[in-house]
Amino acid sequence: MPSGALPGFRDFYPPEFSERAFVTRTWRDVARRYAFVEYDGPPLEPLELYTRKSGEEIVGQLYNFTDKGGREVALRPEMTPTLARMVASRANALRKPVRWFSIPQLFRYERQQKGRLREHFQLNVDILGEADVTADAELLAVAIDIMRAFGLTPSDVVARVSDRRLWRDRFVGNGVELDQMPQLFAVIDKIERAPRDVTLERLAALGLRPPVVDEILDFVQRKSVHEFLAAAEAVPAMAERVRELRRYATYLEALGVLEYVSIDTTIVRGLAYYTGIVFELFDARGEFRAVCGGGRYDNLLEALGGVSMPALGFGMGDVVLAELLRERGRMPPAEPAVDYWVAGSDDALLPQVMRIATRLRAGGRSVEYALRGQALGRQLKSAAAAGARRVVIIRPDLVEQGEAVIKTLADGHEERVRLSDWLEAA
Amino acid sequence: MPSGALPGFRDFYPPEFSERAFVTRTWRDVARRYAFVEYDGPPLEPLELYTRKSGEEIVGQLYNFTDKGGREVALRPEMTPTLARMVASRANALRKPVRWFSIPQLFRYERQQKGRLREHFQLNVDILGEADVTADAELLAVAIDIMRAFGLTPSDVVARVSDRRLWRDRFVGNGVELDQMPQLFAVIDKIERAPRDVTLERLAALGLRPPVVDEILDFVQRKSVHEFLAAAEAVPAMAERVRELRRYATYLEALGVLEYVSIDTTIVRGLAYYTGIVFELFDARGEFRAVCGGGRYDNLLEALGGVSMPALGFGMGDVVLAELLRERGRMPPAEPAVDYWVAGSDDALLPQVMRIATRLRAGGRSVEYALRGQALGRQLKSAAAAGARRVVIIRPDLVEQGEAVIKTLADGHEERVRLSDWLEAA
Repeated sequence: MPSGALPGFRDFYPPEFSERAFVTRTWRDVARRYAFVEYDGPPLEPLELYTRKSGEEIVGQLYNFTDKGGREVALRPEMTPTLARMVASRANALRKPVRWFSIPQLFRYERQQKGRLREHFQLNVDILGEADVTADAELLAVAIDIMRAFGLTPSDVVARVSDRRLWRDRFVGNGVELDQMPQLFAVIDKIERAPRDVTLERLAALGLRPPVVDEILDFVQRKSVHEFLAAAEAVPAMAERVRELRRYATYLEALGVLEYVSIDTTIVRGLAYYTGIVFELFDARGEFRAVCGGGRYDNLLEALGGVSMPALGFGMGDVVLAELLRERGRMPPAEPAVDYWVAGSDDALLPQVMRIATRLRAGGRSVEYALRGQALGRQLKSAAAAGARRVVIIRPDLVEQGEAVIKTLADGHEERVRLSDWLEAA
Repeated sequence: MPSGALPGFRDFYPPEFSERAFVTRTWRDVARRYAFVEYDGPPLEPLELYTRKSGEEIVGQLYNFTDKGGREVALRPEMTPTLARMVASRANALRKPVRWFSIPQLFRYERQQKGRLREHFQLNVDILGEADVTADAELLAVAIDIMRAFGLTPSDVVARVSDRRLWRDRFVGNGVELDQMPQLFAVIDKIERAPRDVTLERLAALGLRPPVVDEILDFVQRKSVHEFLAAAEAVPAMAERVRELRRYATYLEALGVLEYVSIDTTIVRGLAYYTGIVFELFDARGEFRAVCGGGRYDNLLEALGGVSMPALGFGMGDVVLAELLRERGRMPPAEPAVDYWVAGSDDALLPQVMRIATRLRAGGRSVEYALRGQALGRQLKSAAAAGARRVVIIRPDLVEQGEAVIKTLADGHEERVRLSDWLEAA
C-alpha cells in the first residue's frame, strides 16, 4: 500500500483538520458579516476554461487529462474562471452587485520544492457589477477584517495597495515613454529584493534621466495613504487618481481598516488582468509570502467570453496564513472532542451508560464511553486521553439510589448527584 | 467559454450551496455529539490505493490519469482506502478505538444516465479497533440519529440490518450446501424486485427442496429485531448470532434508535469485504435508493496492507438524502444573507452608512448597504431583495440629532431611535 499521500498533498489528521476548520470557520464568519454568500463549483472543469484565460502555457502547471469520454479536463487551479462561467450563465437573474465567496481546494502541478504544496484551500471573495471605488474599499475591508478576526493587528499585517495607473499618470510624459513602461515595471517588480545600486543601474539602462530616477525612487517608498496623497496632489496628471484614492481612504477609514493600509507602488506584477486598485496583505515583518492578493479586474468576465461586468476580488490561501497564525501564537489548539465521558463500574451497567450518553447527546453534548468493559480506573484514563471535561460515574449502589458521581477531570473534584435532576440540567 | 459544468458535476449557486451546507452541518453536529473527530485526505491519490482493494476492474469507473511526474493517480472514488492508509501510518500513536469521520467529495466515472452524478459528497463515519457488537450499535445509532436530527421519523426511514453469517448458520447443513451460497445470495439479492413465482423458479433451479424454499421465503420477511430473535431461537446453529443480536438490540434500545431498526436478510450484496453486521437506511416508502450503507469490515485494513484492526463504518451520500429531505419538506429554505441593510438618503452620508455597518458587523451581524448612491426607495427595494430583516435609515436631519429610523421589512414597522444607544444594544 502507498504509505503516504502524493507529494505536495496533505493528509489532515484530526489535529491538522482542526486548524483548517478554524481558518475556514473564521473566513466564513467574516464573509457572512459582510453579506457575502457562499457558492462552489466542481473541482474538475473543462481544460478550455483555463487556457481561454491564461493561454496554453498554463497547461504545464495543471493537473489535466483526457477523461473516459474524451473530454480535456483539469483540476481547478483557481476559482475565477468557474465564477465567471457560473455568473455568465445566470447573469440576468442575479441580484447586482453579486457578493459571493467560496472556499475551493485548488491544484497546481508545481515543480516540487521543499514545502511547496500542490494543493491548497483558498478563500475567494468577489464583488461583480460595481465599478465605483466604494466596492474596492468594501473588498479590502473584508480581507483586513479577517486578519482582525484572527487577532492580527496592524503591527502583524499590512495591506499594500497600488494601482498601475498611478505609474502611467505620474511618469508617462514626465520622463518615461509609454512603451518603456513594461521594462520599468520589470525593474520595479524586483526592486524590493535588489540592492540599491543594482536598481540604479537598471533604471539608468532604461535611459531614464537622473532626476526621473530620483522621482521613481521616491515614488516607490511605502507611504500611508494620506502621505501619498499629499505628495501626489502636486502632480496635475494624477488628479483623477488622487480624487479616487481620497474617497477610497475616506471609506477605508469609515470601515475601520485604514490603519492597516499603506500605498506601495512596487506592487506592479500581479496578474496581467488587473485594471485598477490592487492589494496584497503581508505580515508586517516581511517573513512570509503574501497572505492574500486581489484587486479590480473589470475586463476579465468579458474576456472569458461571458458578460461584461465590472468586477473585483481577492484570494487568500490557507497555507501562508496558517504559518503566520502559528508563528504569532494565534492558532488555537484543537478543541477536545468530548464533553462528557460516561463510565460504569460493571459490564452489566452498559445499557444504563448508553442511556445516559443518549440523554446528554440529545442535549447537544459530545459524549463517549468505553465500548468494551474496563475497570473504572482505566476508563478514567481513557476519558482523560480523550480530553473529556467531566466523567459521569455510575455504580450498582449509586444506580439503586438513582444517583451518579460527576467528576471534573481538571481538578479531580467529585460531586454526587441525583441523576435525573442532573440530566435535566446538564 | 464552456457554458456549463462537466456532465455529472454540480455547480452550487448560493441556494444549492445553502442546502449542501445544511446537510453537512447536520452531519457534523451529530458526529460530534457521538465524539467522532473529523479528518480529511487528498482528493487525488495513487491509483494503486484503489486497485489494491478493488482489483483492476475498478479502473474503468475512475477518474484516473498519469500526472506530470509519471505517477498513476486517481480522484478518490471512496474514502476507506485513504482512511486505511492514514491509520496504518500512525497506528501506534492513535487512541483506540479510533472514532473518525470525514465529508469527502468522491468521484466516479459512471456511464452517464439521467440524473446520475459523477461526484457527490459522502459522510464517512468509522470506528477502528473494537470488535464487540457495542461498536456496531454505536455506529448504527449515529446514522439513525442523523435521520432524527433531520426531522425524519421511523415512518420516514427504516434501518435494514443483516449479517451474511445468519444465512450460513441458518441454512448450511439445513438444506443448503456451503458451495450453493453464492448462487443463493444472487437470487436473494434480486428477491425484492422479482415476482414471487420467478423467485420460486430460481430457488427450485438451485435444487433446493420445497420445505427449504418455504423456510427461505419466511427467513427473508422483514421483521423487528425481537420478532426475528423469537424465530431464530428455535435454531441451535444460530445460538451465537442470537446472543450477539440480543445484545445489539439491547444497546440499540438504550441508544434510543431501536424503533427505526428491522432485520432484513435480503441485504446480502454489499461490498464483498463486509464480515459481520451490515445495514442500509432506506426511506420507509421505498421510493429512493439507499440513503446510507455500512457495516463491519474486520479484515479490510489488513488486506489493504496496513495493520490488522477490527473496523466498521458507513457512508451516507448527499444526493439521495437531499432528495428525501426535499420530498418530506425537511429541507429548510436558504437563510437570508443579510440581517441589516443600512440606507442613507444622500451620497454624502455614505461614510456614516459605512460606520454604522462596521459597528453592526463588529457585533456579528450581517450587513449590506448600497455601494452606489441610490434613492431611498430603491435602497429599500434592494434591502427587500437581499432578504434583509431590518433597514437602518439615516437622513441629514436625523444624523444632526444623532438619530436613525429602524424599519422592519416584514411588517413595515418604523421606529425612530437614538443611534448610539441603539447600536449599543443591537
